[in-house]
Formats: sequence, structure tokens, C-alpha cells
Amino acid sequence: MKKLWNQSKTVSNKLVDEYCFKEGIELDNSLVLYDVYGSIAHAKMLSKIGILNNDEFLKLKKYLNEIIVLYKNGEFKISHDDEDVHTKIENYLTEKLGDLGQKIHTGRSRNDQVLVDLRLYSKEKLLNMNVSINQLIDTFIMFAKKYEFIPMPGYTHMQKAMPSSVGMWAGSFAEQLLDQLTILKSVYKLNDQSPLGSGAAYGVSLPINRELTAKLLGFSKVQNNSLYCQISRPTIQLSIVQVLTQIMLCSSRFAQDILLFTTNEFNYFEVDESICTGSSIMPQKKNLDLMEYARAKTHMVIANQQLMSSLTAGLPSGYNADFGQTKKPFMESFDITIQTLEVLKLTLNSIKPNVEVLIKSCTPELYATHFSYELVKQGMPFRKAYSKIKQNLSQLESSYPAPFLKLSNHSGGTNNLKLNLISKNLDKQNIFWKKIKQKNKKVISLLLS
Amino acid sequence: MKKLWNQSKTVSNKLVDEYCFKEGIELDNSLVLYDVYGSIAHAKMLSKIGILNNDEFLKLKKYLNEIIVLYKNGEFKISHDDEDVHTKIENYLTEKLGDLGQKIHTGRSRNDQVLVDLRLYSKEKLLNMNVSINQLIDTFIMFAKKYEFIPMPGYTHMQKAMPSSVGMWAGSFAEQLLDQLTILKSVYKLNDQSPLGSGAAYGVSLPINRELTAKLLGFSKVQNNSLYCQISRPTIQLSIVQVLTQIMLCSSRFAQDILLFTTNEFNYFEVDESICTGSSIMPQKKNLDLMEYARAKTHMVIANQQLMSSLTAGLPSGYNADFGQTKKPFMESFDITIQTLEVLKLTLNSIKPNVEVLIKSCTPELYATHFSYELVKQGMPFRKAYSKIKQNLSQLESSYPAPFLKLSNHSGGTNNLKLNLISKNLDKQNIFWKKIKQKNKKVISLLLS
Amino acid sequence: MKKLWNQSKTVSNKLVDEYCFKEGIELDNSLVLYDVYGSIAHAKMLSKIGILNNDEFLKLKKYLNEIIVLYKNGEFKISHDDEDVHTKIENYLTEKLGDLGQKIHTGRSRNDQVLVDLRLYSKEKLLNMNVSINQLIDTFIMFAKKYEFIPMPGYTHMQKAMPSSVGMWAGSFAEQLLDQLTILKSVYKLNDQSPLGSGAAYGVSLPINRELTAKLLGFSKVQNNSLYCQISRPTIQLSIVQVLTQIMLCSSRFAQDILLFTTNEFNYFEVDESICTGSSIMPQKKNLDLMEYARAKTHMVIANQQLMSSLTAGLPSGYNADFGQTKKPFMESFDITIQTLEVLKLTLNSIKPNVEVLIKSCTPELYATHFSYELVKQGMPFRKAYSKIKQNLSQLESSYPAPFLKLSNHSGGTNNLKLNLISKNLDKQNIFWKKIKQKNKKVISLLLS
Amino acid sequence: MKKLWNQSKTVSNKLVDEYCFKEGIELDNSLVLYDVYGSIAHAKMLSKIGILNNDEFLKLKKYLNEIIVLYKNGEFKISHDDEDVHTKIENYLTEKLGDLGQKIHTGRSRNDQVLVDLRLYSKEKLLNMNVSINQLIDTFIMFAKKYEFIPMPGYTHMQKAMPSSVGMWAGSFAEQLLDQLTILKSVYKLNDQSPLGSGAAYGVSLPINRELTAKLLGFSKVQNNSLYCQISRPTIQLSIVQVLTQIMLCSSRFAQDILLFTTNEFNYFEVDESICTGSSIMPQKKNLDLMEYARAKTHMVIANQQLMSSLTAGLPSGYNADFGQTKKPFMESFDITIQTLEVLKLTLNSIKPNVEVLIKSCTPELYATHFSYELVKQGMPFRKAYSKIKQNLSQLESSYPAPFLKLSNHSGGTNNLKLNLISKNLDKQNIFWKKIKQKNKKVISLLLS
Repeated sequence: MKKLWNQSKTVSNKLVDEYCFKEGIELDNSLVLYDVYGSIAHAKMLSKIGILNNDEFLKLKKYLNEIIVLYKNGEFKISHDDEDVHTKIENYLTEKLGDLGQKIHTGRSRNDQVLVDLRLYSKEKLLNMNVSINQLIDTFIMFAKKYEFIPMPGYTHMQKAMPSSVGMWAGSFAEQLLDQLTILKSVYKLNDQSPLGSGAAYGVSLPINRELTAKLLGFSKVQNNSLYCQISRPTIQLSIVQVLTQIMLCSSRFAQDILLFTTNEFNYFEVDESICTGSSIMPQKKNLDLMEYARAKTHMVIANQQLMSSLTAGLPSGYNADFGQTKKPFMESFDITIQTLEVLKLTLNSIKPNVEVLIKSCTPELYATHFSYELVKQGMPFRKAYSKIKQNLSQLESSYPAPFLKLSNHSGGTNNLKLNLISKNLDKQNIFWKKIKQKNKKVISLLLS
Repeated sequence: MKKLWNQSKTVSNKLVDEYCFKEGIELDNSLVLYDVYGSIAHAKMLSKIGILNNDEFLKLKKYLNEIIVLYKNGEFKISHDDEDVHTKIENYLTEKLGDLGQKIHTGRSRNDQVLVDLRLYSKEKLLNMNVSINQLIDTFIMFAKKYEFIPMPGYTHMQKAMPSSVGMWAGSFAEQLLDQLTILKSVYKLNDQSPLGSGAAYGVSLPINRELTAKLLGFSKVQNNSLYCQISRPTIQLSIVQVLTQIMLCSSRFAQDILLFTTNEFNYFEVDESICTGSSIMPQKKNLDLMEYARAKTHMVIANQQLMSSLTAGLPSGYNADFGQTKKPFMESFDITIQTLEVLKLTLNSIKPNVEVLIKSCTPELYATHFSYELVKQGMPFRKAYSKIKQNLSQLESSYPAPFLKLSNHSGGTNNLKLNLISKNLDKQNIFWKKIKQKNKKVISLLLS
Repeated sequence: MKKLWNQSKTVSNKLVDEYCFKEGIELDNSLVLYDVYGSIAHAKMLSKIGILNNDEFLKLKKYLNEIIVLYKNGEFKISHDDEDVHTKIENYLTEKLGDLGQKIHTGRSRNDQVLVDLRLYSKEKLLNMNVSINQLIDTFIMFAKKYEFIPMPGYTHMQKAMPSSVGMWAGSFAEQLLDQLTILKSVYKLNDQSPLGSGAAYGVSLPINRELTAKLLGFSKVQNNSLYCQISRPTIQLSIVQVLTQIMLCSSRFAQDILLFTTNEFNYFEVDESICTGSSIMPQKKNLDLMEYARAKTHMVIANQQLMSSLTAGLPSGYNADFGQTKKPFMESFDITIQTLEVLKLTLNSIKPNVEVLIKSCTPELYATHFSYELVKQGMPFRKAYSKIKQNLSQLESSYPAPFLKLSNHSGGTNNLKLNLISKNLDKQNIFWKKIKQKNKKVISLLLS
Repeated sequence: MKKLWNQSKTVSNKLVDEYCFKEGIELDNSLVLYDVYGSIAHAKMLSKIGILNNDEFLKLKKYLNEIIVLYKNGEFKISHDDEDVHTKIENYLTEKLGDLGQKIHTGRSRNDQVLVDLRLYSKEKLLNMNVSINQLIDTFIMFAKKYEFIPMPGYTHMQKAMPSSVGMWAGSFAEQLLDQLTILKSVYKLNDQSPLGSGAAYGVSLPINRELTAKLLGFSKVQNNSLYCQISRPTIQLSIVQVLTQIMLCSSRFAQDILLFTTNEFNYFEVDESICTGSSIMPQKKNLDLMEYARAKTHMVIANQQLMSSLTAGLPSGYNADFGQTKKPFMESFDITIQTLEVLKLTLNSIKPNVEVLIKSCTPELYATHFSYELVKQGMPFRKAYSKIKQNLSQLESSYPAPFLKLSNHSGGTNNLKLNLISKNLDKQNIFWKKIKQKNKKVISLLLS
């Protein structure tokens, strides 16, 4: 492996290579485009401050654009003989352009390079994920609207509590995800700072123009303090994974509900066979591995959150190679979460309520609180009404549940779920995301041309 | 223990009580005021919708205000004979007001009550914490300004890398915390939703006015879907703890730096003896337990984040008693974090740089990159300049570091830390926090009067 | 607070005290007896090597025995004015015995003292816990025997799979816990090493006799390397908590099963009302908070395992004050686990199978595999038999389940659970534990006399 | 993908496949050999109980042996078109042997198959890891012997405490690892139970002989209760990972020590350049990424321990597909740990103490405790001696450290490290491991012939 810091010989120990760099090399294949973008912006800035002339910049840009083409054709793969994405690109330019290639690293370090890559990668992933969340929220709202007044026992302590509805159940997921979108927005902004120019953590003694590269790459601001730029590598990634954790927790609740509600004993939902799996020994089985995996993968993202939190605790200021070990849990968490959002959408589109079973499951005790309130309406203090009903539970009569759903008129009650309002709030959120998506697209196309 | 659901007898198993309720009872003492606020708002709303008359409301308010007085005098302590804060208050009102006390629980559940308590508790804690963060950021900025150009070796991989400054080091903490303040703001807003009226998770069949209670308590909006209100109990708490984790990670870095920089071998800072501890066996010892504990307590908050994440994973929709177990890690995390912020401030005020040692530590190899750039300025491609210096490391000469610090003029470099700008950004942030602090104060005083 | 390292003045900062020592002081009340034991053994050894004379030793022993009496009467409580248990005891002896009290700390450090305390504490806790595990395993075996052939659907993927039995279900817990007992035994041995004499981590320059103190305190060996003694403080505690985690995971499975099997929808077990709790709003509720808390507290012990693992990662060799922060999660984990074992026993003694429901739940598809095997017995290759049954699932007939249970004769099958063998293995395990319990008792009584 | 449960069509959803099975398929390539072993043993047993005739068994064995050859030549790779290792092997046999291949799955489930695979895999990995640990302990002992009396400051609270030695430092790691070997032994035994015959968790209605297959595969016993067999899949894996965590914590301490002791400021060890890495920007850098990665990877194993603990918490009895998600963290933890042990060995072989620096670092305050003891030897009570030295710290004189090391003669002190005894204990441990290694080898060769 020809390294940037060791151009003449290849003495480095093989175990060292495998232990420290192997994993990162594979992951670097996801960063090629971003590294190219960063390099073009950096080169342009170098030409503006006189370290490169314009002709040199144009040559570099040409070959950097060439890398994009190669990459998209699958012909620019970082392998175990390369050190990392940064070295491979510098080596490529040097091979094509000689001395000029040796100038591209002027005024930067792989430390700020990888930071730029990860920030741009995160921006794109966050934008993609936002699309998935958006669609999923929309699917939940549609589902809730369709079955708004289909009754369903509401549970507390895993025991029947009060009448609820399929609409309330589905609506609760829509609102949970929508709330996470607002946090996501502030995390997006946190990530939207340019670390380029912070060097190895202590800046450079050249008159670089950080504002310019930030603008060229579409960052909304320069991340100031050089040392903080490096420090923020794991912490901003963690901020993102913390939101991913919240999204996965929402998915986990959905998964556990579906697993419970599709047991033979509950049987609240019919599942399309196309998403079920079977058994090698038991002919009758239709399993929902999909939901079990969603439940399990939630713990993977949580463990990644844990890893990224404790891994950086106790590290002193400055770049520490330990940061490199956050790449995998970070990228993995993104992939899991985005895929899980798709899995939820697929599942939601593959189930339908067993209305009769749901109605039959609304057994008399579900109405005990409602009957207490009837006594309250007649003037009895609540605690007395409660006691009276408690002493006469066996006399509660079976009732058709739908009319009870109509009794909760207050905001967020079964008869006032405000599904259209949720839809509108979602649309409002999307204005922000659409705007930045367009802006980012424009910036990159400008950069490359 | 006289429970709300078991007024006639006290049969419940002692082990059950200890296992499930003991811990929560102690913690409930932190919630008394908020439970009273919620109860007054709820009672006022009940009077507006005709379930109580105005006279009844006034009586309830009078006795609820009495509880505040008792509480502040330490005479309203929830003990192991009480079930929880909610029961104790209802029992108190019933004792004083008979039938009227038995009406206070109309249209609510302990589930939405505790949610209100925790939201109000969180708002106050977040506001208090913001003051501490604010002061600490300010202390860091002052420290950075005071020692802006005191040189200090910058480290990567725990090895000397490039010249840095005490100003850059201190400024990096200020910026890290400031970034967390923006996330904190969106988390504050997430928490600022009223769950009152969501009942046990499925609303109530009474014409309650959730908008009114939200307004009376100073919430900026009603949290809509009843089921989601309950679900959001652990998740919003987790959102807060996720930010606390970030703050602790910043503290951990500071602690590790201080521990390293105050070893006899580094000796970069002088520490005031008043914050040191000694040994029972070794007469000479001056230890910085304070920083070791900050480092250790970071892991406590991380573990609480972990606990609150995985504890709720895999739970089905609806209230689950497991939620109760989040109270302790949640409150504990707040206390640790706020105290740690104070500890950092104290420490920062108790150290000063050993200027001579710092200067002497700036050994020649620190300037290798600078000298490479000198060659670049003369036209040599960077990679060649790098190689040339690498081959002649032994010829690097010792230099006085200060002039080198002046060479990094770009944004965030040692000669351009923008400390005044950071100060201004901090002031801007504070406008938001001050405004809500005032608003909250006004709302509560209106509520009680 | 009068500290050992600061006898003349009390200057130390209040925030330092609160932040670093407050929590530990409370926990130290659990260590008083062990600290006294260690002190007597240490004093005896000092008298054997001539640093104390025999008369001095006897005086020290007398007053140390006095502390035991005071402690047992609740009159020796470590408060916030004391530094810790070690200081309080030394101060007590110095107050009573003057110069002689000032000799007790010769040749030891609080670092090895607290290690001794924690090792003795752990030994006693492990022995107590073993009794609880033992009783619980026994209860599971009794339960399994009583309902050995009561049929119960066996589940995979939360879906009905094959016929199982209440006996198999209960037996599975007995075997799981029994396997953990063997790990516990090796962890007990790991903990059963004397660290006394390792000093602050680097031994002492006095001719102390570590073998003698180890023997006096009933340790089975001296833990050798002084530095390793200190290092092993958090790691041996972690070894214990790792086993506690396993026990809690077993409890969590039990809890989740019980919560699922006692839903109205499954209704496999009848629960005695004495362990149920109610609702403040819903008159009909009988909740099993107990099992929800067992499920939740499992995550607390897991989080403590996490905390104790990552807290010590990245610490350099030698004593670090961070170790002090392991005391709480360690002791808390012990308390939770022992209490949970009692909770499981109580629950198991409070439930009984609803036999008719269980039989009715054995719906035809449960036997699909059995019918495949019938075809296999007639010579059809299994995969063909499987396919044939799969294509004719609707023709499977309802059957009485009990005979099917008799068909699994192989080891560990429903008709061959080997419950008596499990009982015998449990008895065998207990020989080890009983022996050490008796030995420990004898050693301590000898030490005090 | 042709699945065992869906032979006729290939309808299953692509997202389902990717989400649930993709990761497992890749990992299954590590299980091929073990699956073949299990299949031969199972087939032999089927022939003994009359479900296969001897000729059929011989044919199956022949083709299963063929798979071993193909696998070793890299020609039996499980790809995304296969379901898993079990399906691929059954399909291979069916392709080659028709109806006979369709018989191989008689009386087993993929659930007990994968369990067998993982147990055999774990046995081999544990044996391999034991070799690495063994060599590493030996390397530490050699290092300790070589530099037994080279002085080194001993630290507490990251501050100089008392004189220590390179021998004590290195010896502490040897003893720490040796203690873990004893836990490893009991975990090996836990894993050494045969789950074959437990089926999908509820046994099978065929007269299978579980004792026979256990013996053929070299397991020391049958794991009894069928349901417990399944349940123990994640828990026994966790037991292993808990020990891996301990080993990694030991590695982390070593890494942090090396990183600290090789800073320019400490400079206690000289590192061979062959294991160092450089910087892309700073020509002078020699970084120890290797140790930073060891520190970081410790957190990965801890996070895997966390994942495997919380992932299975809250799951009900029976097989849950969530278990599948433990495969990756389990195998990854093994690989990381074994590689880390090699990394430590390499590092230890690449460093040597800077003796002069170490001696010079033994500054006067290190001896304060020793001087206190000198006063004690003259009859002064320790606490008085301590105070006297404390008040006269500035008068402590510089001394040559070596003689002080000779003063700690007690067990585990600098002059009595018992390195030969540690060596002997290591040898004793190895008898157990060598014996089972030989036994396992014999069993497998017998099985295949």
C-alpha cells in the first residue's frame, strides 16, 4: 500500500494495516463522490489565493470529474492496496498530472477532508431519509383515515383498558415521527457547517479562504474553531444517530404491536402472505420475521448510539484515531434506519384490520371508565362513581363499541384525531426539506461544471 | 398504603410495594409543585365545563395552594405509606374537602398527570441548566481571551502535532457547548406540549378542554393524539438525555485534558489546591478527583441514555409500567449534568497556564508542517515539500512559538478565533431562553393567584 | 469533614465534596462490618510482625468489636461529615485510643481497604443470592412437576408452533438458572482473593504478611501483583454483574411470558389478586406491575453492566478515582437481582394454569409437524411429507393434545423432561455453596473472638 | 431464492429477503464445516434408529464430505440466491441424491442446526483464542522478567504515587489475563452441550437418540430441556462475549498506558517504527494508531455485549427471529478480540523501556510514603509520620530508585513478583485446553471417516 506519508517504501506491518485500516477502506467507497466535490472546491479556492493558477485548477477539475465517471461505472473502487479514499484520489491525480497532483493536498489534511466527506454524505442521507419518513408518515395518516372509527381495545400494562380505534393507533405513529422531524431539522443544521480548512485540527499557515470553500460546497456556514471542527466529528455524527435511535424506537413499537396483534390469540390484523416467511420443519408456519428483525435492528442502532457515545468519552482534545471507528456504526445506522422505514411502509401496506374480531374484542370491562363518567355526569363525585362501578364489574354489559368512540371529542380523542391537521403539518415541514434539496443539487452541479 | 384503586383494604403485597413503588415515591418529592400546578389548571378547566362550580374550584385552589406552602416548609413529604404524589394530593384534598376532593380526578388519569409533572419539571430544569451552560460558555470565552496567544502544543494521536494556543483550546469548548444549545432549543420545544387530557392513553368521554389547560400551564401547544401522549413519555425524556449526553461528552474531554495537562510530565496548568484531594497513605498527593469524577459521571449519563433507549424498545403501544423506571435515570442525568457544569466552571476558575512550560514544550518538530508550507510558498508542490522536510527532520530548529500562531489567519485559526463573535452568538441564543423564562414565571403566578 | 489527608483544617471545597464523595458515603454504610473485619485481621498481622505489640492488638480488637455492636444498634452511621467508612473507623479508634489509633493504617491504604471490604461484601451477597436462586430453581421444578403434562402451545416467532407443556416451560427456567450457577461458582472463586497488602497499588516497604491476613479473613488465596489488585477492582465487580445480567435476562423472559400469557387474549394463567395493582381511573383493572418492573429492571442491570464496562475502558494503569463510581451500579445490581429472584418466586407461587383454556388453545395446526412425521414413519422422505401436509393444512383435525406430548421421548422432550435429574444437579451444586458458607461463618467468628 | 418452506415458487418479497437474511447469509460461510459435521452425526443417528438404512447414511456422508472439499477449495460459497447454509446443503444433497437428500432434515429443525453450528464454531474459536491468550501472557511474563527491576513511577489518579517497576507493570497484565482464563474455562463448558434434537424448541415426535449425536460431535453432554436449548442460543453467546469484554478491557488498559507512556512528555518506551503510522500533512508524525484502535475496538466489543444483552431482554419464550441478529456481533467480537491479542503481542515485542528516562522520572515525592514508614520503623505512629513528612515535602531528597524496589518483599511487591509461579499457573491452565483440543480433533476425524 502506497501511503501519503510513506511514498518511498512499503514497510508497514500487515497486521497494523488490517487492524487499523481494512474496515475503513471498504466504507470509503461510499465517500468517493464527496471527496471529489471537496477536492474541486479546495482546488478552486487554492487558485483564488494564488497557490494554483487557473489552468492548473481546470486540469484538476477535469480529472476529478473523470473520477466521478469512473466511480459511477464501478471502475474506481478503493481496495486493500490503497490507503484510503483520499490517498487513492491524490495518487490518481499525481499519476495523471505529475507535480500538479502533488499540489492538491496543499493547505488541508486528511482529517478535514474526511470531515467534509462525512458532512456531505450525512446531508445527502438525511435528505433521502426525510423522503422515506415523509412517505411513511403519509402512509400512517392514510391508514388512520381509512380505519378512523374501526374500534380496537386500548391497552395499558398489556391489559385491556379503554376503547380505542385503529385510527388512533395509526395516528399515534404519524405524530411520533413528525415530532422527530423537527429535531432532525436542527441536527441537519448542526451538520451543515464546513470544517474544510481546519487542517489536522490546528489550521494551516496559509491564507486559505474557508468562507469560499464553504459556499462552493453549499454549507450554510463555516465551522469556526479548528480544534472544535475535529472534535465535532464524532459528536455531530452522534447527534444524528440519536435521532435515528428515536426513529427506530418508533419502529420497534410498531413491530411489537404487529407481532402481538397478529398472533392467533389477538388476530387483529390480516397479513398478506407475500411478506411472511415459513419454517423448515413446521408446514403450517407464517412468520413475520420482518417485524422481528425491525425489533432486533432497533437494538443495533441503540448499540451504535452507545458505541459512539462511550467510544469518544475520555479522549483528550485533538484528533484521535479512535474517531475512525465511528464510521461503521454511523453508516450502518443510517442504512438500517432508512431500510426500516421502507419495511414499515411495506408492512403497513400489507395488513388490514379484522374488523369483526376487533369489535368482538371490545368486551364489557373496557367501558368501565365510561360508565363511571356517566355517574359523574349525574353528579356523583368521580372517586365514588369509580368505586361503585368497581364493585359491580360483573354487571357491565356488552355494547357495540363504535358509539363510545364518538364520546371523546376533545383534541386527540377518538372522535377528534385531527388527521388533516397532521397532514398539513407534514406538508409544512417539507417546505424546509424541499428547499435545501433543491439548493444542494444546484450547488453541486455548479461546482462540477 | 391507601391506594386510589383500593380504598377499602390494604391487602397489597409488601414485596410488590417495595419492588414497584419505593423508588418512585422518593422521586415524587421533586414533583409536588408541578402536580399542584396541574391540578389547579385541571380544576379550573372542570369549572369552565360545568363539572365543578366556581366555588368548588376556589376551594380546591385554596387547599392546593396550601400544599405549596406545606411543601416549601418541608411538611408535605411523600413517604412509603403514600402511593405516590398524585394519591397523596387527592387524599389530602379529600380529607380537607370531603366529596369535593373526590371530584378532582374527574377526567384525568395518573398517567397524564405524571406526564404533566415531568414536562413542567423538565422545562424548569432545562431553563436552570441553560443558565449554567451559559455561564460556563462565558467562562470559557473569558479564559480564551485572557490566554488567546499563549502557545500550547496541539496534539493528534496523543502526539505533538502543530502549534496551538490556550485560546484555541478554551474556545473549542465554548463553541462545542454553543452548538448543543441549538439542539437543546428544539428539544425544549418538543417537551413544551401539554399531554393533559390524554387520560390513561385513550382520552376521556367528557367534554374536557385541553386547549385551556395547556394555556393555563404555559404550554405552547396541546400534544394531540392521546395514545402518542403516553408513548412520548419515555421518548421525549430520552431526547433530553441525548443532549445531556452531548454536554457530558464535552465535559469528559475537558476533564481528560485537565488530568493529562496537570500530570507532572505535562505540567501545563497550575491547579489551585482548594479543589485537590489527598491520599491516606501518600503524604505528597494532590489529586484531581473532581476531574476523574467528571470523566466517570459522563459514563453514568451515557448509561442512562442507553437504559432509557433499550428499556422502551420492544414495548407495545399504550402505557407500560416500565415507563416508571425511567424516572430515576432521567432525573439523575439532569442532576449530574447541571452539577458537572458547575464543576467545570469551578475548575476553569482554579487553573492557570504555566506559560514557561508551555513555551518550552513547543519543540521543533511541531513546526514541520509550517516549514513545508514555506517551501510551498516558494513554489514547491506540497507533497514534495512534505517529503523534503520529512527527510530532514533533525535539522528543524527550535523557535519561539508565538509568531507561528500569527500565521493562521483564516477563520478559526490561532490568529482568528473570533471570540467576540462567539460571545455575540451566545447573547443571541439567550434571548430565546430569557423570553420563555419570563413567560413561564408569569403563567405560574397567574395560575396560583 | 475531617479527612485522613487533611487533619488540621477543613478547607476543602463544598462542591468537590458533594460531587466526589456524597454518593460513596451513603453506600459505605453497607461496608462497615467488612471494614472492621479487615482492620482486625490487619492489626493481628501487624502484631505478628512486630509493628504492634499483642496488648495493642487486643485493645484495637476490643474497640473494633465495639464498632460492630454500635453498628448493629444503628449507632454507627457514616454521615456527610465523615470522609468515608475507613476514615470514620480510624478517627473512632484514635479518639478512643490516641496514638494507638494512629497506628492502624500502617502498611495499608484506603485503596486496598475498600477492595477488601468489597470482596467480603461480594462473598456474602453471592452466598445470599445463591440461596434465592436455589429456592427459585426448586420452585420452578416443583411447578414443572405439578403441571408436567398440562399441554400448552409452544411458540416460535410469537406464533403457534408445536405442542409443548407447562412442565417444559417451567423446566426451561430451572435449567437456565442452574447453568448460571456454574458460572457463578467460578466468579465466586475469582472474587475470593485477598488484595490486602497491595497498598495504593504498589505495595508497601514493610515486611507485611499477606498470606496471614488472607487466611484470617477466609480468602482462599492472596491476589498477587499489587498493581493488578487495584486494577481488578472494577473488573471483578464486572464479572459479577455479568452473571447478574444473565440472571436478569432469565427473569425478563419469565416476566414477558407471564405478561403475555395473562392477557385476556391468551389467558393461560390465573393470577392471585394479591400481587396485582389497579388503576386510578379504570375500575376494572388488574395489572401485573410486578412483571413489568422485572422486565424494566433487567435493563437497569444491563445498563449497569454497560456502565461498569465502558467506565473503566481507556483508563491507564493504577488506581483512578473513576473506580469509586462503580460502587453504586455494583451494589444496586446485587439488590435488584436478589429482589427480582424473590419476586419471581412470589409470582410463580401466585399463578396457576387455566387448564381448559390451554387445551382449547391447542388448535390443529400445532400438530402439522407431528403428522409429517407420521408420513415419515410410513417411509415418505421428510421434505415430501412436509410439502404434502403444507398443501393440506385445512384438513388437519382438532385433537386432544396430551397424547402428543407423550410422543417426544428423547432427552428433554415433553415426555422426558428429567425433572428429578435437574433436582439432583441442583443438590450437587449446593454442596459447594454450603461448604463455603460454613467455612466463612467459622472464619469470621474466629476472627472476632 | 429456493427456500425450504417454499419449494414451488419464489414469490417472497425482495425487501424482506434483504432486510432479514442478507447479513446472515454472508456470515453463514463461516459455518459450513460445522453444519456438515452436524449433518453427518445426525444422519448416522438416523441410521441407528432405522429412519435411514446404513447405505443411505454412507451416501449422505460421502456427499457431505464432498462439500468439505468444495468448501476448502472455495467452491461452496453461500450467496444471496441461497436461503442459508442449511438450505444450501439440503438442496445440494437433494440435487445429488434425490429423495435421499429430502430425508436429511428428518427430526431436526434449522433452529437446532444453527445452534449446533454455533456451538462447534465457538468451541474452535475459544480454543484458538486460548492459544493467543497463552502466547500473550507468556510474552508479558518474559517482558516482566527481562525488565523486572527497571524502575518506573507508579501512578494513582494519573499522578505520581510510589515507585513501581516495569516488571510489576507487565506482570499485572499477565495476572489479569490469567484470571480471565479460569472464567473462560467455565464458559467453554457451558457452551459444550449438544442442542441437537431440540428441534424448533419443542423436540420431535421421533425416537431420536440425542446422546448419540452429542457423543459423535464431541459434546460433553446433552443440553436437556428442548425449549431451554433454543433460549440458550443468545445467552451462551453472551456469556462468551462477556469474557471477550474482559479481555478487551485488559487490552484497553495496555493501549492507554502505551499511548500515555510514549508521548513525548512521558517517553518511557521506545517504539519500533515498523508499527507506527504517519500523517498526510505533518512530516514528523509517528503515530500509534494500533493502540488507538485497540482502545476504540474495546468499545465495539462492549457495545456488542450491550447489544446481545438488551436485544434478548423482553423476548418471550421460544425461538424469536431476533436471535439471528446476534450472529454478527458475536462473530465480530471473536474476530476483534483474537486480532487484538495478536496486536498486543506485536506491540509488546516492538517496545523497549527508556531506562534513563524512567530513572530520571522517579522524582523525590515518589518516596514520601517510604520515608513515612522509616519513621514508623523508629516507633512513630503512622498517622503522625505521615503528617510530619507532609509538612516537610520540600526536604525530600532525590534518590536512586532501584534500592526502594527491593524494600517491598511481600507477595506481589516489587521485590517478590513471583513471575515463575505465574508461568507455572499458566502451564497448569493449559493442560485443560490441550486435552480438549486433542479430543476435539480426534472426534471430528472419526466422524468424517
